[in-house]
Amino acid sequence: MTKNMMIAQSGGPSSAINASIAGAIERALAADEIGRVFGAVNGMQGLLERRIIDISEQITRADDIDLLIHTPAQALGSSRYKLPKDDPAIFDTILGILKEYDIGYFFYNGGNDSMDTVSRLSAYFRERGEDIVALGIPKTIDNDLVETDHTPGFGSAARYVATSVAELYLDTVVYPLPSVVIVEVMGRNAGWLTAASVLARDTGVPAPHLIYLPEVPFDADDFIAKTEKLLETEGQILVAISEGIRFENGEYVADTGAAADAFGHKTLGGVATVLEDLVKQRINVPKLKTRAIQFNTLQRAAAHCASAKDLEESYQCGYRAVEAALEGKTDVMVTINRTNDEPYQSYYALAPLSGIANKEKSVPLAWIDTKNADVTEEFIRYARPLVRGEATEKFVGGLPRFFRFDWSKTVKP
Amino acid sequence: MTKNMMIAQSGGPSSAINASIAGAIERALAADEIGRVFGAVNGMQGLLERRIIDISEQITRADDIDLLIHTPAQALGSSRYKLPKDDPAIFDTILGILKEYDIGYFFYNGGNDSMDTVSRLSAYFRERGEDIVALGIPKTIDNDLVETDHTPGFGSAARYVATSVAELYLDTVVYPLPSVVIVEVMGRNAGWLTAASVLARDTGVPAPHLIYLPEVPFDADDFIAKTEKLLETEGQILVAISEGIRFENGEYVADTGAAADAFGHKTLGGVATVLEDLVKQRINVPKLKTRAIQFNTLQRAAAHCASAKDLEESYQCGYRAVEAALEGKTDVMVTINRTNDEPYQSYYALAPLSGIANKEKSVPLAWIDTKNADVTEEFIRYARPLVRGEATEKFVGGLPRFFRFDWSKTVKP
Repeated sequence: MTKNMMIAQSGGPSSAINASIAGAIERALAADEIGRVFGAVNGMQGLLERRIIDISEQITRADDIDLLIHTPAQALGSSRYKLPKDDPAIFDTILGILKEYDIGYFFYNGGNDSMDTVSRLSAYFRERGEDIVALGIPKTIDNDLVETDHTPGFGSAARYVATSVAELYLDTVVYPLPSVVIVEVMGRNAGWLTAASVLARDTGVPAPHLIYLPEVPFDADDFIAKTEKLLETEGQILVAISEGIRFENGEYVADTGAAADAFGHKTLGGVATVLEDLVKQRINVPKLKTRAIQFNTLQRAAAHCASAKDLEESYQCGYRAVEAALEGKTDVMVTINRTNDEPYQSYYALAPLSGIANKEKSVPLAWIDTKNADVTEEFIRYARPLVRGEATEKFVGGLPRFFRFDWSKTVKP
Repeated sequence: MTKNMMIAQSGGPSSAINASIAGAIERALAADEIGRVFGAVNGMQGLLERRIIDISEQITRADDIDLLIHTPAQALGSSRYKLPKDDPAIFDTILGILKEYDIGYFFYNGGNDSMDTVSRLSAYFRERGEDIVALGIPKTIDNDLVETDHTPGFGSAARYVATSVAELYLDTVVYPLPSVVIVEVMGRNAGWLTAASVLARDTGVPAPHLIYLPEVPFDADDFIAKTEKLLETEGQILVAISEGIRFENGEYVADTGAAADAFGHKTLGGVATVLEDLVKQRINVPKLKTRAIQFNTLQRAAAHCASAKDLEESYQCGYRAVEAALEGKTDVMVTINRTNDEPYQSYYALAPLSGIANKEKSVPLAWIDTKNADVTEEFIRYARPLVRGEATEKFVGGLPRFFRFDWSKTVKP
């Protein structure tokens, strides 16, 4: 019996997230068991507001899927909406809408919050005896989902961070003056992406000289001591820090008055600026130049620097989610399971959502070299295969082309 | 008679500047008239300190030149040193060093300050009857040199800015919330690079919605009015501003207290942060999200996003500078002269340095649409050909490889 499919996206953007829906869409369009392929615009929020588009209608040209794969940030929009814990009526509403659209297959493409949503929906459908499967497709540049070796989106963001750090280092050494460049990388609780800056060294540069992750308490005195020493030996240094680094007492460095000025005013801006001010205040080196750089949203949107391996795996996660759904699987997420670092080998599997939802995977402490503010060779072996390959983006006149769904073209069941 | 060559670089980094020395080096290595090819590390400062390397000795592997072309930021280092106006002795010192190294050909690769240096050196050599030619090779992401249609380095930085603006726009529309993203682009006095953000629209996105250049006084009230209106019609907007925008009274927006907080404290950070605070204070839209993004030094170092056309032209400027020198030309800079926009056609020529040194070329007022905070179609036709083509950078394992001279291997004459 043919049933329709609904897919939606959630969480923060990445430059690989649309490769996942591209994989899911291609598999669905080829499946006899699946009728129409719907997309909810802006995740669960859009679903509840019936902002639903017909994907099969909008994917019309031969290269639409290819463009979609290389388009950064949720092509179906995202949402910060969380299903309320204590409102069973909302599940009835969602079920009602899915039944209106005759949905048999539901997919949610996002991070750990999204996996919680899928898990609860799946449980509810089963409880009610409804014939709807609900599956998760992983996504996050933060790489903090458990059960999977890594998450789609991480490799591309890591490639951007490592490449940019190497380029920034070359920029910083051109003047014969001492300098400290502090680069702030996303990651509130998990330092994976900041740690990936270490791959800049594969290009032959010594940067980053210091790496600070949120997994380990930040010691300002030690940071200053290390920086002073490196200024003597290296002259120009580059430091990579996670936005989420905290002091021993748990306070976010970004939130502290560590760099408060003479009048006690807190510094505006991110943690890189706080550390830049700290360096200015505590290090007395003549003509010292300091610079705080935030990669900001570029690190999650820079599709022009996506990793081909990441896009391929992201695509496969979507593709295999649909395959699993066709086999009747529900309440699971597609995982990537590594069997070898070099040559890199992995296979795809499924893991129950209950073990994934609301959990966060940190960088193992054994992979962090706290003494040297660095990461270990184990981390490097882990990260290296994930940034491989240049995405063959579609350029016209040197500039990328994107696929964009028309969100205003909503459809009735 | 064989003479040696000396080349040096100056000014701010760009991702195309090494293509110029690559072109010069390749032409020089093939010239019977040129003996050894020396490089001064850190521009005139390094020359005066006799930090001189033998380039012919260090370019040894088949792909060194290709790597050099794709390596961002001065491979010979840069310097902020300016020749003093009233110290004739310094010219004697420079001449002495050049004669020690038996230099007949001197090249300086930089912006308008550098062209002033070359011009004065050339005049001095002629005055003294010395047989040394001195030529300029243009470089600057700012695109503010006169006499040339555009400068090497501009196209690559423009490609990075336009690509990143398009990607950032896609990132900003994923949430169904009103938002204002303010992107700060380099350019203290000339708005060329900020104006190039308009090319993001070639990718199909409507961003940037507003463009502010330093050529036109910035009107805060008008900016707020336009932003409010766009928030109503578009919901999410992206504004591109030059770091050097000024109010009618000449004061830099970045320096003003426009966004001083309730206690009169000035905002730290760049002009994007000042405007972000202005939006926060003056626009009352529920749930409005604001974000200030600085491209910072990434825009001049992102070789991974270089324009192939820019690298080709940068290479040719270096190559042709050596050709001109071999013909006995001195006190000139290589220029790029456009004859057609579409298809893009240009030829290389030479222009006297006296007409270039210390001058700045602004965006013509006729190309700025002040009423709509935009640029005109003329500007777009001008900029479009310069961002074309993807640089075929050398990647190993997904990450770039660079060529770096060993600056410590200085050589005696």
